[in-house]
Amino acid sequence: MNTGELKMSWARQYMPVLGEIRKRFEADKPLSDTKIAMALHVEAKTAVLVETLAAGGAEVYITGCNPLSTQDDVAQALNSVNGVHCFAKRACSVEEYYGGIDKVLDANPTVTIDDGMDLIHRLHTERRELLDNITGGCEETTTGIHRLRSMAADGKLEFPVIAVNDTPMKRCFDNVHGTGESALSAVMITTNTLIGGKWFVVAGYGYCGRGLAKMAHGLGAKVIVTEIDPRRALEAHMDGYHVMTMDEAAKTGDIFVTTTGNTSIITGRHFPLMKDGAILSNAGHFNVEIDIPWLEANKEGFEQRDGIDTYVIKGKKISVLAEGRLVNLAVPKGMGHPVEVMDLSFALQALCSEYIKNEGQKLSGGVYEVPNEIDITVASLKLSSLDVSIDKLTEYQEKYMTSWDIGT
Amino acid sequence: MNTGELKMSWARQYMPVLGEIRKRFEADKPLSDTKIAMALHVEAKTAVLVETLAAGGAEVYITGCNPLSTQDDVAQALNSVNGVHCFAKRACSVEEYYGGIDKVLDANPTVTIDDGMDLIHRLHTERRELLDNITGGCEETTTGIHRLRSMAADGKLEFPVIAVNDTPMKRCFDNVHGTGESALSAVMITTNTLIGGKWFVVAGYGYCGRGLAKMAHGLGAKVIVTEIDPRRALEAHMDGYHVMTMDEAAKTGDIFVTTTGNTSIITGRHFPLMKDGAILSNAGHFNVEIDIPWLEANKEGFEQRDGIDTYVIKGKKISVLAEGRLVNLAVPKGMGHPVEVMDLSFALQALCSEYIKNEGQKLSGGVYEVPNEIDITVASLKLSSLDVSIDKLTEYQEKYMTSWDIGT
Amino acid sequence: MNTGELKMSWARQYMPVLGEIRKRFEADKPLSDTKIAMALHVEAKTAVLVETLAAGGAEVYITGCNPLSTQDDVAQALNSVNGVHCFAKRACSVEEYYGGIDKVLDANPTVTIDDGMDLIHRLHTERRELLDNITGGCEETTTGIHRLRSMAADGKLEFPVIAVNDTPMKRCFDNVHGTGESALSAVMITTNTLIGGKWFVVAGYGYCGRGLAKMAHGLGAKVIVTEIDPRRALEAHMDGYHVMTMDEAAKTGDIFVTTTGNTSIITGRHFPLMKDGAILSNAGHFNVEIDIPWLEANKEGFEQRDGIDTYVIKGKKISVLAEGRLVNLAVPKGMGHPVEVMDLSFALQALCSEYIKNEGQKLSGGVYEVPNEIDITVASLKLSSLDVSIDKLTEYQEKYMTSWDIGT
Amino acid sequence: MNTGELKMSWARQYMPVLGEIRKRFEADKPLSDTKIAMALHVEAKTAVLVETLAAGGAEVYITGCNPLSTQDDVAQALNSVNGVHCFAKRACSVEEYYGGIDKVLDANPTVTIDDGMDLIHRLHTERRELLDNITGGCEETTTGIHRLRSMAADGKLEFPVIAVNDTPMKRCFDNVHGTGESALSAVMITTNTLIGGKWFVVAGYGYCGRGLAKMAHGLGAKVIVTEIDPRRALEAHMDGYHVMTMDEAAKTGDIFVTTTGNTSIITGRHFPLMKDGAILSNAGHFNVEIDIPWLEANKEGFEQRDGIDTYVIKGKKISVLAEGRLVNLAVPKGMGHPVEVMDLSFALQALCSEYIKNEGQKLSGGVYEVPNEIDITVASLKLSSLDVSIDKLTEYQEKYMTSWDIGT
Repeated sequence: MNTGELKMSWARQYMPVLGEIRKRFEADKPLSDTKIAMALHVEAKTAVLVETLAAGGAEVYITGCNPLSTQDDVAQALNSVNGVHCFAKRACSVEEYYGGIDKVLDANPTVTIDDGMDLIHRLHTERRELLDNITGGCEETTTGIHRLRSMAADGKLEFPVIAVNDTPMKRCFDNVHGTGESALSAVMITTNTLIGGKWFVVAGYGYCGRGLAKMAHGLGAKVIVTEIDPRRALEAHMDGYHVMTMDEAAKTGDIFVTTTGNTSIITGRHFPLMKDGAILSNAGHFNVEIDIPWLEANKEGFEQRDGIDTYVIKGKKISVLAEGRLVNLAVPKGMGHPVEVMDLSFALQALCSEYIKNEGQKLSGGVYEVPNEIDITVASLKLSSLDVSIDKLTEYQEKYMTSWDIGT
Repeated sequence: MNTGELKMSWARQYMPVLGEIRKRFEADKPLSDTKIAMALHVEAKTAVLVETLAAGGAEVYITGCNPLSTQDDVAQALNSVNGVHCFAKRACSVEEYYGGIDKVLDANPTVTIDDGMDLIHRLHTERRELLDNITGGCEETTTGIHRLRSMAADGKLEFPVIAVNDTPMKRCFDNVHGTGESALSAVMITTNTLIGGKWFVVAGYGYCGRGLAKMAHGLGAKVIVTEIDPRRALEAHMDGYHVMTMDEAAKTGDIFVTTTGNTSIITGRHFPLMKDGAILSNAGHFNVEIDIPWLEANKEGFEQRDGIDTYVIKGKKISVLAEGRLVNLAVPKGMGHPVEVMDLSFALQALCSEYIKNEGQKLSGGVYEVPNEIDITVASLKLSSLDVSIDKLTEYQEKYMTSWDIGT
Repeated sequence: MNTGELKMSWARQYMPVLGEIRKRFEADKPLSDTKIAMALHVEAKTAVLVETLAAGGAEVYITGCNPLSTQDDVAQALNSVNGVHCFAKRACSVEEYYGGIDKVLDANPTVTIDDGMDLIHRLHTERRELLDNITGGCEETTTGIHRLRSMAADGKLEFPVIAVNDTPMKRCFDNVHGTGESALSAVMITTNTLIGGKWFVVAGYGYCGRGLAKMAHGLGAKVIVTEIDPRRALEAHMDGYHVMTMDEAAKTGDIFVTTTGNTSIITGRHFPLMKDGAILSNAGHFNVEIDIPWLEANKEGFEQRDGIDTYVIKGKKISVLAEGRLVNLAVPKGMGHPVEVMDLSFALQALCSEYIKNEGQKLSGGVYEVPNEIDITVASLKLSSLDVSIDKLTEYQEKYMTSWDIGT
Repeated sequence: MNTGELKMSWARQYMPVLGEIRKRFEADKPLSDTKIAMALHVEAKTAVLVETLAAGGAEVYITGCNPLSTQDDVAQALNSVNGVHCFAKRACSVEEYYGGIDKVLDANPTVTIDDGMDLIHRLHTERRELLDNITGGCEETTTGIHRLRSMAADGKLEFPVIAVNDTPMKRCFDNVHGTGESALSAVMITTNTLIGGKWFVVAGYGYCGRGLAKMAHGLGAKVIVTEIDPRRALEAHMDGYHVMTMDEAAKTGDIFVTTTGNTSIITGRHFPLMKDGAILSNAGHFNVEIDIPWLEANKEGFEQRDGIDTYVIKGKKISVLAEGRLVNLAVPKGMGHPVEVMDLSFALQALCSEYIKNEGQKLSGGVYEVPNEIDITVASLKLSSLDVSIDKLTEYQEKYMTSWDIGT
């Protein structure tokens, strides 16, 4: 095996849910006559999804969804899988990045799988001629769903898209545990700093933020949460975290991680307030949460290490990891989300691709929830792989839950 | 001050949100011409809600919602508050219990506030002549909402009811933190057993269950979760708990707490499997989660202590706290939910009562969500009482969140 | 059974280690011809120790070690046990307290068991005529050991005393878990306030303090630690707590618990700095950690509730639990340490009493460690009652650990 | 700056205690006329210690203490520091390894600093002619101290050695937090597997083990502890972990980390019991805790990835990280202990080197504790760098703590 294949073999071992789906796909070929266009982080776990789809009979065309997240040996290994065509390349230029997207679209796909909506965006702007052929798509990220909902609200989304991101089986695991663990380990291994005792600032108390907060807290950090929603802010407070504005957090924090999915979270107003040695990183999809252009424009000095850019601002050193890109993937040692978590998310993708292929024609343009039975199937397959059994409602209990006629 | 008043003065001090609302209510009297019927746990915190409603101009008629939860000194103190009429009595018989409900209804109320739906149930069965006068109601518990939704689905609910229980400001605090902390401390103080190192079984991984699981875990317990929903089961697994069926848990558990809101969770099938010394309790609304009648019918011996009934089953001692009733209220030392949590829940009740008085006429029979602005108001008042400031979206950020036109 | 016996029967069930020891004691009567004088908290768990000692053949004379901690029904039940003479009484005056100690000493004991050193102190001051008859003693608390070591350093301790408190099997369980859990539940059940989100101040980061800190943290509190030792302070910092002086903590804290074993921890300098509604309690042995006399002398108002004294200082309400006495025992609902923890501590007492009876004559006056084999025996009996097996060193491993001749 | 210097500059920024010491060393040159021989992990943090010693006037000769832990760019950067001579090389052969040690000793040193006792061992065996010139030494690890104490017990240790490892300021931070965080992040980043929900086996519940257990638990793992000491086993049980023998743990565990400092912890008896996909690693000093030779001799198949060796045993895949060497240093992405933790440990080394230079002549051969005032100094410098203030005993409190004359 070459290194890409070794990585895929490692990932495959810890992805039992996709493994079960693959068995059925190989037998039934439910994706025959399907061309799937994908823009995802091309690394070992994604490759196991890709080979699963191909095992189901699909032709798969894939490129990256982030200029720094492709692993070239995996891309190469993918190209030797039957029915798979991979165009991703690490450290590509913006032109190469969009070139990859175009090559994927040139296949005239019927189904799309996106991680950040770049593929769908391209289809609706530069490549509108291909829209007619699309049955539907799937989107993986909070950020992508945000953008798709805005698009749908404007009446501009021309085919049905499954919001894989929003389903409980994705958010409660991929966002909470996946982002939580992998962003934390990426920060630890890149900076070699201690988490215990630190002021650890988490911007945003959504699913990603609360996972990260809990884990940093579990290592002994004092966690600061910034929020815009008073209810989430109060939840963070009662969970034992320190809630404050970013203006205040900037003065206190040792390590910062943004998880909002919004823009301009840490900006030129905040950098000059920070302590010497502050470390900044982003776990949201796009690199707009930390205002790097401001740092570039205002720096008094600069040092560059593996995955760390240190800016001197007002005489103090402020270090940004991975140029403000998704820290768990974009630092040199980054591995992305843990394998087991992607097993769940990608099992959803595999089953939603099958669903959209079969049902997409009946749906108008818009954003759709993952069908509940798919969610339940993935959860049940995972529990079964863990040998965990759970209770079932008895008939009497079901009746009790739907009756209203029983008093105190 | 007598002891009831001393208890109310203590509670009032830790209920700043109701305090703020009371200031406005006293000035504006928004509840004048309103007769409010209430069936709630009559203790100090409820009393602060009652006096707040009365301060807003309402006539308030209140009785208990559980035969064991009334504190007589508080009931007495309430009766000396202007505009308040209290009929609750501790350790009352079933007849006295429904007698209290009838006395409250005799006032011909316009608004109801329920904790378990007994009041609304009585209105729709025995006291239908009063229905015409009702503008609407509020319901506090998961259990009550379940019953109301079933009723509404059958087309039997004749006035609008606000599902206070379901709103984030209630569930994320009252259920998670309120039930979590108070059920745990009630078990600890009643049994004097150690939590650290124990197998602590939580039935149900809803809001109450996950609060309780987290806190028992925080004291060093090994937590077992039983569930019927595979997604929640998997969440519990990833959160570090041991997921299994109740059949398995019965053999392992040292301490059991049911939080499902359903019936027949621990039954005659489970008791004989248990370890000698097992301790059982219920934190759900009704005393149907543990099958006490089975224990009574099958016991080989019996001992009774303060709040603890010990049954001998197959030669082993199995102890049930508070006769399987809501453990945090019904054990002799029980104090119910912590004050600060009820401040939030009761602030919702106060504002929803005002809302239903003003808007109820426009709504048809059915279950309604708490209006979002009420939820936000309560959260903001609480944050402000804590001197916690949070961020606000900038115009640019709002635009970013609603646009879809920005690529990688 | 009367209530005292019911309490003892409850405790006995969760004390398997004493149960095993009792079996051997009943068979071998190792304590025949021994008169044991005890001053301990007289409640159900202590009673199980007392009946174990009596089962071993000892005559036991016991009184309380704290004016508020005796449970009268247990005292009464003890008096009906063969060979036991109990003089303890709840809410006794200072005269009655020392009267109880004198009655115990009137028996002319050969072995003492102390919880705070009051018995040994009395023997060395007012009752020196009895010293000759004493073989040795055991002391349970940090505070008592402190005093005994000072006494020994002055050459004033005239018989050998086993420092039960200092042995790992006591400190790591009784102090960490026993004080931690029971002080926390006592505060929760007495005040009905929420722990989640609160600033919870722990004075002292010894065994008791770190147990309490960890558990309050586990419920969602933000924990502040005050310390005098820079190493412990740094440990607390790295463990995720907020380390500061009491002068600073006084301004921030919502709930305070002192665990230092020292005096004058929260004083007249601190009270006026506190927030309205601050709650103060003590988990150290003596009631000198919070300066109650200052509060009494400077109060502008006063309210008294069950277990809570509220003082008005500078217009703000400051509440002290249990008059500053050991909060887990002295609040009205207090149950003292959890049963399982006292099973370990009292198993040490039982075995140390046997040891001092047999070996005390060979030892000169001074403070002695618990013999290591007793410590190991108690740990092993407990593990065995839990059905927990552990590894054993192989011969090869033992050799490896004692060799120095193996390089990289 | 070259990459070695960039790494040193990064580390220096997070080592404020060594920074303070360096200021004094530069001014006072307390180590002039001292030749220091060192065998340590040669990476950025060690380099900051080395330059601090050199700043104090010492000539420093350094080589590695582990064939896989040297960073060559740092070794090179060190060689350009005045007064420093570095002989370490990554991935060196055993001959080169001992060659490095010999070159260091060729300088005829007066003081030694060891991490695993290889230097002192060589001095007492192959290079005894140099012993006369040695004033004393310092040892960093648990393992080294074990060996030194055995040596001293045999009367074979010919100069005084400070047991830096055993002092609270080392064990409570370096072992608990340093090993805990860095072993965990090394496992996470190397394997890309999820920690949440996993059975995580920690062999040994000493300082390293309990740090690691707490942190894995903090990420949502179910932690299994194996122990040989019943007291530590019971502590682990009460802390919420699952205590069992390695024979049982082998069947259950998903991820294993050994931290015992002993040999033969996971052996040929255990591997065949393991689950398919089990991951094994070692955080103890030497690579003898996992029996790699057995795996090599009995494997049915083999795959090699970056830092992961996968053996097929009984048809199941068992993966060992870093060939069973110290996982936080020896995996390809390993960074060793966090910077802030090494700041404390190396500050102890710097001050102990100064102490042994000044006082070593007065001491006979043997193992000595770190002088208490050095421990306190390091703690105080660290607290001061964090702007943390702590309380001081008043005269009255000191008197109280040493008196025994104050009763209840």
